[in-house]
Amino acid sequence: MRHDFETHRRQAMSIFRAWGMPAEKAEKSADVLAWADLHGLESHGIALLVEYNERRQTRPINFQSKPAIVQETAVSALLDGDGGLGHDPAIRAMETAIAKARAAGVGVVSVRNSGHFGALGYFTTKATDHDLIGIAATSVFGIRVPPTGGAAARFGTDPWSFAAPAEPGRPFVLDMATTTVASGKVRNKIVEGQLMPSGWGMDGKGVPTLDPKAVMEGGFLSPLGGAAESAGYKGYGLAAMVNILASCLSGSTLITDPNHSKQPWGLDVGHFFMAINPALFRPIADFRADVARFCDDLRATPPVDPLKPVQVAGDPERKVRAEREKTGIPIGPGLHRRLHRIAQESGADWVLAPASVDSLQLAGDSEPRAKT
Amino acid sequence: MRHDFETHRRQAMSIFRAWGMPAEKAEKSADVLAWADLHGLESHGIALLVEYNERRQTRPINFQSKPAIVQETAVSALLDGDGGLGHDPAIRAMETAIAKARAAGVGVVSVRNSGHFGALGYFTTKATDHDLIGIAATSVFGIRVPPTGGAAARFGTDPWSFAAPAEPGRPFVLDMATTTVASGKVRNKIVEGQLMPSGWGMDGKGVPTLDPKAVMEGGFLSPLGGAAESAGYKGYGLAAMVNILASCLSGSTLITDPNHSKQPWGLDVGHFFMAINPALFRPIADFRADVARFCDDLRATPPVDPLKPVQVAGDPERKVRAEREKTGIPIGPGLHRRLHRIAQESGADWVLAPASVDSLQLAGDSEPRAKT
Repeated sequence: MRHDFETHRRQAMSIFRAWGMPAEKAEKSADVLAWADLHGLESHGIALLVEYNERRQTRPINFQSKPAIVQETAVSALLDGDGGLGHDPAIRAMETAIAKARAAGVGVVSVRNSGHFGALGYFTTKATDHDLIGIAATSVFGIRVPPTGGAAARFGTDPWSFAAPAEPGRPFVLDMATTTVASGKVRNKIVEGQLMPSGWGMDGKGVPTLDPKAVMEGGFLSPLGGAAESAGYKGYGLAAMVNILASCLSGSTLITDPNHSKQPWGLDVGHFFMAINPALFRPIADFRADVARFCDDLRATPPVDPLKPVQVAGDPERKVRAEREKTGIPIGPGLHRRLHRIAQESGADWVLAPASVDSLQLAGDSEPRAKT
Repeated sequence: MRHDFETHRRQAMSIFRAWGMPAEKAEKSADVLAWADLHGLESHGIALLVEYNERRQTRPINFQSKPAIVQETAVSALLDGDGGLGHDPAIRAMETAIAKARAAGVGVVSVRNSGHFGALGYFTTKATDHDLIGIAATSVFGIRVPPTGGAAARFGTDPWSFAAPAEPGRPFVLDMATTTVASGKVRNKIVEGQLMPSGWGMDGKGVPTLDPKAVMEGGFLSPLGGAAESAGYKGYGLAAMVNILASCLSGSTLITDPNHSKQPWGLDVGHFFMAINPALFRPIADFRADVARFCDDLRATPPVDPLKPVQVAGDPERKVRAEREKTGIPIGPGLHRRLHRIAQESGADWVLAPASVDSLQLAGDSEPRAKT
């Protein structure tokens, strides 16, 4: 089943509005999710509505939140997310960092008391639209990754993004969990009833597994690098860096705090955004030309497989976007069914295509099934 | 054979001076190398003199360099290294970033036309001494890492460092090559005649190998994460980020440029340094307390092996330092022999202990030997 970007956006918006979000805020949040689906980042697209729906039932989210800057200098701002979802404060934070970097050369914005904000690349790409380098990092709520040598989880997926302008429309955009894979990819394997490739995670005893449920139910995700001998302590170190920048700098609840969260609403997630103006050091045209040349040099590397040319961070997502702008965004039956139930339960308009007869028969299942 | 920190420092200083470096500069460079040896980072200690000695014979290094700031704002500086080694310009750059972050909240310093500067942790730790977050990255000269899916090397070890103040004397210090291991570790295996653990590198055809010579002579180092399926594209993405920050921002020669370098002296390596003042967002005592608590929470994780407690980035190096301050810094016979020859050839004072009879007999060998 396939829909265009606008349909994904309207479906997400109608569900956010049904949950009590004002129209302007719902539009922003929906834009972030639909952007991820358009770029092939399904784990950060409207699939997140399933997770948000579970979370709002265990801990109230402030859908009427009024994010505000509470402290500011020429190069920095501290923003309070007011216990809502993270999309709106994250957009404001990146816009603030961009404005400060345009005026003063650098902008660093720390966000506290916020929530999940979707794909980091959405925000760092915006910096490149303004001829700036963009950096983003966020702490998360789910604890699923042990420190190297540890037998209990202390980290989440703790993502990091770095983007730089190059040729117009072709920025370098690195957006990565500091785990081998993001939990969203594991979650989607559950939704679609599939096994994982090896190396993604461990069960509750730390034993490698292919079963995504064993990872999500008491098991662990691996930090980037895997075991200590293959330098998993570097992925662990990057995850700690992300938490220091996102939580310690903003004063959000530490992911290791057993009383998480210290705020009345939401998850008290912290974010970190930065924009740097390359014109501090060189004419922007020279910088862009060098980044573009560097990326082209990498793309020109002789490939191991002649059918698979070497790509640069941002290329795979642009390729998917170009395809999906023509043919639409696919959605699996498991996710379609879950979203349909969420829309029904919350009284939201149903914007996606109607469920097939098969899907309707399965609508009472709480778990996805393998294809019959 | 063991010596104290001061002896390592004086040996390095005497060789730098014999190469034509003024005393003040030689003292700075020697301090960076001896610091690495003291902290157990042998690959970035006086072992580097062997590599510097090889390089200065193939491409002239400006030992009389006069690094200078060529462009500056309240939050930034561009520094030209004048074709010398990188220690002196890197120290100046980090000091400049620190001064700007103390005054304006953030300091970003880009360095061009520089050379190798030793261990990044030396510099980022200095930021933490001033209650600041420190970040450092550098491009390198040796090309040894293919992009994911590529059959030719395009990257070096492209290191990244992030440090944050916590308890006094116990900062968080991440200092990592974006490869599984740094080339220095592979080089030291050659010097001492040992094989590598698995997962560190590939031979010239991209086949995994345990032979460090196969890696250093036509083979490849693996990006962090290894193969694409285990997310090696993330290590590749981090390496590209480091090159964009270090080379593209400063205008240094791109690592992919076949005409490397475009400068008359040295290797035209670029560096990136940043300091961020946490007081922009929170009282510094609160920030330090949260980082300290976070690190202690990680250390308290139940360990897989009860004899190996979980450590935090910076802990292993502090542990080694505490031991070596008591018992001295060990040096292997291969390195001792090579340094002795360099001192003899350059007319430098010999400060380390005299070579043993065995070592003298082997002094004519150009390659290290396995123990007989």
